[in-house]
Amino acid sequence: MNSFQDELAEIARLTDDALDRLIPAGDGPEAQVLSAMRYSALAGGKRIRPLLVIASADLFNVSRTSSERVAAAVEMVHAYSLVHDDLPAMDNDDLRRGRPTCHMEFDEATAILAGDGLLTLAFEVLAGDETHSLGEIRAELALELARAIGAHGMVGGQMLDLMAADHELDVHEITRLQRMKTGALISYSCQAGAILGKAAENQRHMLAAYAHDLGLAFQIIDDLLDVEGDAEEMGKRTGKDGQAGKATFVSLLGPERAREQANILADQAIKHLEIFAEKGDLLGDLAEFVVRRRK
Amino acid sequence: MNSFQDELAEIARLTDDALDRLIPAGDGPEAQVLSAMRYSALAGGKRIRPLLVIASADLFNVSRTSSERVAAAVEMVHAYSLVHDDLPAMDNDDLRRGRPTCHMEFDEATAILAGDGLLTLAFEVLAGDETHSLGEIRAELALELARAIGAHGMVGGQMLDLMAADHELDVHEITRLQRMKTGALISYSCQAGAILGKAAENQRHMLAAYAHDLGLAFQIIDDLLDVEGDAEEMGKRTGKDGQAGKATFVSLLGPERAREQANILADQAIKHLEIFAEKGDLLGDLAEFVVRRRK
Repeated sequence: MNSFQDELAEIARLTDDALDRLIPAGDGPEAQVLSAMRYSALAGGKRIRPLLVIASADLFNVSRTSSERVAAAVEMVHAYSLVHDDLPAMDNDDLRRGRPTCHMEFDEATAILAGDGLLTLAFEVLAGDETHSLGEIRAELALELARAIGAHGMVGGQMLDLMAADHELDVHEITRLQRMKTGALISYSCQAGAILGKAAENQRHMLAAYAHDLGLAFQIIDDLLDVEGDAEEMGKRTGKDGQAGKATFVSLLGPERAREQANILADQAIKHLEIFAEKGDLLGDLAEFVVRRRK
Repeated sequence: MNSFQDELAEIARLTDDALDRLIPAGDGPEAQVLSAMRYSALAGGKRIRPLLVIASADLFNVSRTSSERVAAAVEMVHAYSLVHDDLPAMDNDDLRRGRPTCHMEFDEATAILAGDGLLTLAFEVLAGDETHSLGEIRAELALELARAIGAHGMVGGQMLDLMAADHELDVHEITRLQRMKTGALISYSCQAGAILGKAAENQRHMLAAYAHDLGLAFQIIDDLLDVEGDAEEMGKRTGKDGQAGKATFVSLLGPERAREQANILADQAIKHLEIFAEKGDLLGDLAEFVVRRRK
């Protein structure tokens, strides 16, 4: 048995339980938006961001009651971003994690509202009393999430991605796009653990450096899997960047150099964990998993 | 000179200044989403919600630096809800405040992202240090906003409204729909003033009762103006509820009883302000304005 795989499965289960509790099925006609929120947030997925939150918080012995709520909030944000990105006016995707996307299963209006509802609920969870006894911590969790995912973060990254259809990006521009579009929420996941754990300045710094390298490695492998992966195994349409003529790390560097780069970044990420000694093992295992994964 | 009109104009100006500072035009390709956010948030409008925030906070002598930020955040949320509601998949409106709606001026993808960006920025502003020195207060502001505008509040209300095309609503159902769709954010605006001002329980209670009655009066007059109003003066398409076959307070009660009901609610709203003595005059004047307005 691979103990990292067990740990990842356990955290996926905890995250699902938390999401199930935090998004209760409703009654009345508004139940439709709650169904669509549950459909999108409880659709499986690797739960890498929840693992980052919980493993980072574990470094500082934060109670799991706190870190599981924050992990669920981060996963809600991830689900909202997928629901909106999949819309016909955006990337127009029909399939996600092997199932119809939210607007295909429900309709476009419901998908827009489900995304809005998930984003809003994430802030409700972070700011809620049960997340942490100190208002200071709850406010910082909400503030840093908003910074990570707004027009200067994830939302801006998706805008860049849409605009990129019009002109060729170079490696510098692709890196910036990915830092905003996927890197910012990955970084926040680690930062949230540090906020909950009232980490010291150098600890925050090392965790941020880890998240930075991990986020880029994750994206490079994502691009590789989009080229090399199998749609059935991936549970989503593959080869779409190439079809859209979009520059990616792989189209710019070639698959071999791209994979080499991802491995270097994962090694670097692991080095940043040295100050945490064996407590950093789970985050280190995750960095290895990210570059080895097949989907 | 009407001093209430002066006050409303002054608060609109302060809100515009705050929004202009808080949504700086960007550079780089993500500038497009920031332009669309500015376009939608700085489009004028009556600024009734900012007035509610500031006037409620004034009851407790809260510094205007705090209440103006919260007022701007509430207006961002209002703007986001209009941008998403106007989308083709939702109400499909071309005109708003006399100008093309966001997706007509930009495109659908940009409008979806601009809404997402405004919603996110609202939480960033509320949770930011400059809003209040106490983390407890900042977290409560974020928490109560999220409760008001999520699937059990504004987002749920818009879902109800979309579902209402399929069956006739009665007065009870219409009232519930409007409490969620427009009432919840109006109530939050007053509640935010009470949170900033650390209001006592009975003060919060009276402000909530005022906001409840004001919100319903506001919606009834909105429905009346949709029937009787002039599209040019209103700056948006009118008569659309009737065309869509939607039940409203006016279609259910008739215009005369609807107006009577709005007047009764405004009077009730004003009565709830008695405990604040002359400090409540601005909120009282607003209740009168809401039922007398022509657009």
